[in-house]
Amino acid sequence: MSIRRIGAGARMSKAVVHGSTVYLAGQVADKSKGASVAEQTQEIVGIIDDLLKEAGSDKTKILSAAIYLSDISTFAQMNSVWDTWVVADHTPARATVEAKLAAPEYTVEIAVIAAI
Amino acid sequence: MSIRRIGAGARMSKAVVHGSTVYLAGQVADKSKGASVAEQTQEIVGIIDDLLKEAGSDKTKILSAAIYLSDISTFAQMNSVWDTWVVADHTPARATVEAKLAAPEYTVEIAVIAAI
Amino acid sequence: MSIRRIGAGARMSKAVVHGSTVYLAGQVADKSKGASVAEQTQEIVGIIDDLLKEAGSDKTKILSAAIYLSDISTFAQMNSVWDTWVVADHTPARATVEAKLAAPEYTVEIAVIAAI
Repeated sequence: MSIRRIGAGARMSKAVVHGSTVYLAGQVADKSKGASVAEQTQEIVGIIDDLLKEAGSDKTKILSAAIYLSDISTFAQMNSVWDTWVVADHTPARATVEAKLAAPEYTVEIAVIAAI
Repeated sequence: MSIRRIGAGARMSKAVVHGSTVYLAGQVADKSKGASVAEQTQEIVGIIDDLLKEAGSDKTKILSAAIYLSDISTFAQMNSVWDTWVVADHTPARATVEAKLAAPEYTVEIAVIAAI
Repeated sequence: MSIRRIGAGARMSKAVVHGSTVYLAGQVADKSKGASVAEQTQEIVGIIDDLLKEAGSDKTKILSAAIYLSDISTFAQMNSVWDTWVVADHTPARATVEAKLAAPEYTVEIAVIAAI
């Protein structure tokens, strides 16, 4: 099966397509870092939309999502954005846990696997 | 490749089948929340058995498992249930780390990917 | 699709091949446990190289990597080894978060998914 890398850099790629599956890197909110979890989540899902489009997919085809929150007490705040973004009946399997992220200004990170 | 969602809700699906692979959501123990890690693990592997069956798979076909423990000192306790559940020589790749979960009553969460 | 398990044990397998995808267990540094994050990362990427080879893959075909650091302040130290190991333009999607690992002597754990 073919491999196609999107935004391939020296350290990582933004997304990697393998056959009919695409793996996205864990996305953080560079523009809104330091802002609220809701704002960061909003930026992140926008980045995911763009990367999925570039891969030939979209949010109705997400298979699995891993969500990391630097403070699990922001679970509801993250969900307030997530719930309006995902498409009912086309929602992915999901796991959400607390974990500190690469820098303290990042409070949410989302990594998804999607179908093409 | 076809996508089939099991237990699709407004926020997430319990499992998503893509071709010959199924991605399960991170499972927690709703009935035994607040109980011991062993009891919660027992409930979780039962839920995973049920979802794998509904997907057309079973525990001998698990490819990968991510296990999150809210307290890594319960590693042996989780394993005491895990080791009796998995089938020798049909065990998945596995990663186990400590992470706080959605609510403090949940002390273990398991997300698996399996073949159909 | 066929399933082939590498290093299958009673608790987990070191790697599981499913069709043209291989899932590696989260690798830790047994020989250099207690040593620096850089040394542990060096041991881990060596183990990953060996497992990928056994699976019929190599580091240019890694699709996705999950990296867990017991102390996120060692992010740069881990990257110093990672960046020399990966092959530019063949880099995986990646997510790095902080999480305590199975024993305090382990300070980094890496789990990858690769194409065959």
